[in-house]
Amino acid sequence: MELPAEFALIARHFRPLAGPGALDLRDDAALLTPPPGRDLVLTVDAMVAGVHFLPDDPPDLVARKLLRVNLSDLAAKGAVPLGYLMTVSAPPATPDSWFAAFAAGLAQDQATYGVTLLGGDTTSTPGPVSLSLTIIGHVAPGTAVHRSGAQAGDGVWVTGTIGDGALGLAVARGKLTDPTGFLLGRYRLPQPRVGFPLAGIASASMDVSDGLVQDLGHICRESGLAAEIAVQDVPLSDAARKAGPDWLPTCLTGGDDYEVLMAVPPAQEAALRQAAAQAGIPVTRIGHFHSGPPAVMVRTASGEPFALTSGGWSHF
Amino acid sequence: MELPAEFALIARHFRPLAGPGALDLRDDAALLTPPPGRDLVLTVDAMVAGVHFLPDDPPDLVARKLLRVNLSDLAAKGAVPLGYLMTVSAPPATPDSWFAAFAAGLAQDQATYGVTLLGGDTTSTPGPVSLSLTIIGHVAPGTAVHRSGAQAGDGVWVTGTIGDGALGLAVARGKLTDPTGFLLGRYRLPQPRVGFPLAGIASASMDVSDGLVQDLGHICRESGLAAEIAVQDVPLSDAARKAGPDWLPTCLTGGDDYEVLMAVPPAQEAALRQAAAQAGIPVTRIGHFHSGPPAVMVRTASGEPFALTSGGWSHF
Repeated sequence: MELPAEFALIARHFRPLAGPGALDLRDDAALLTPPPGRDLVLTVDAMVAGVHFLPDDPPDLVARKLLRVNLSDLAAKGAVPLGYLMTVSAPPATPDSWFAAFAAGLAQDQATYGVTLLGGDTTSTPGPVSLSLTIIGHVAPGTAVHRSGAQAGDGVWVTGTIGDGALGLAVARGKLTDPTGFLLGRYRLPQPRVGFPLAGIASASMDVSDGLVQDLGHICRESGLAAEIAVQDVPLSDAARKAGPDWLPTCLTGGDDYEVLMAVPPAQEAALRQAAAQAGIPVTRIGHFHSGPPAVMVRTASGEPFALTSGGWSHF
Repeated sequence: MELPAEFALIARHFRPLAGPGALDLRDDAALLTPPPGRDLVLTVDAMVAGVHFLPDDPPDLVARKLLRVNLSDLAAKGAVPLGYLMTVSAPPATPDSWFAAFAAGLAQDQATYGVTLLGGDTTSTPGPVSLSLTIIGHVAPGTAVHRSGAQAGDGVWVTGTIGDGALGLAVARGKLTDPTGFLLGRYRLPQPRVGFPLAGIASASMDVSDGLVQDLGHICRESGLAAEIAVQDVPLSDAARKAGPDWLPTCLTGGDDYEVLMAVPPAQEAALRQAAAQAGIPVTRIGHFHSGPPAVMVRTASGEPFALTSGGWSHF
């Protein structure tokens, strides 16, 4: 009794990724015994060829980005990753080698981040490759850091550097040169800050995916505060600095950073610096929250408003 | 500070669907305290316009089908539905009224089935509408019914009637008439058997989504058994009978039934009939499992093999 082609494809490429509870992807559903005494943290992201990645991007990098953008959401809540469910809709003519490379990318990152595949669905589509990934993590009860907890006087902090992903997209589109390949690498393969110790330190946090200014605006709106950041304090990579000041608005609004954006009370700054140093993750204070109608002001070194062309990325 | 259009769309249409732990869809992730002492059951399905539904199908029915096909997977494991996460990728020109109707369909079925939206992602796509839905349910530890537990001598049982969904698709494509609209209704709006009492009765189960013969083949393969069914015992609706015998192969292989297919030991048959009667869900014995290489034999009333043109639906 031969397997239909769809199931043979799943068996060949995705079954090796299946973890405990996935029932080898041979059943209607996965079983998961939740870690006792922990809360679950759940998030989902979709990625579409031609919107979130380029149709000819290497499939292993597409898969790893799909997993990592979700890991980044967990990281921004302080959660420990556990497992994921995934859908892959691909044109009927998609070669087997595409699936093989896609699965190989997932296998590589599963090992890096300690997650396994719990379940999925593979379908055909008359359109571009469309992917979705639901990830499940866990936290100690009550310790998940929300977007809504910022207080007036808290500092605005970010991990890593801002703007590399947006510049990498410009490189992929032939609009910018990238002699070292650093920017393109940052666009194609986010480095989610899994394990960054937020609990008890940050009063609010989220990951930067839609652009620093827009995402900071989300924290402002949910916390009922305004924020002000100093453009010269926003941490840039060497490659981003070399792109020149014309690209600075792109860095601030372009998105695809997958760094953690935090509100940190002054009393917690020493703890933050110590925790970040232990985790080997750079952190930078770029501004502060203050009372006022929700808004984000970006100022130049001389205190003038910095001109931005766009708030961030909106799909509709 | 105005919301970008994407977030306004989410706030307008999807926030009213958000349940406890969804944080009003205002955060990176949802929080879920698992029901104490229960195992979680998780499954995901994708639906693509032009593959799983027709592009001009009413959006409320598309949404309800998306939710119901996942509820059907939970039902086939004996799980109680809890909540779901969803992705919607739609062309940028999709009118607001499409989203409004889509969300209204979800709201209606959330009330029916006692589930709420935990999180989601809304993106644009240059292709057809692409949807995914991950659903979470729960069972008493160790009571989830798998595909792999059938024993030789168990009966093959199904709930409801078989083939209506496949015939409804033929109606939608103009290949069959449907004076009462019953078949089209069954195709567009599955009736998942949520709450059907499987635990302790069925030795194996799954839902019929890819065609009775193919899905029975899954239970055979995972249980290491053969199965034989009698075509005259397969329960058909009045509308399916009226379509005539030429459509019988379509009924057996076409899929979209969302009924529960079970292996039931003879000693449990009385319990099954009683539980089904209490749940108000018809059940029918259509054959039996026996030892042998995994295979499904469909026999006519005179004992001859019944000719099938296709095993079931495969996407690749």
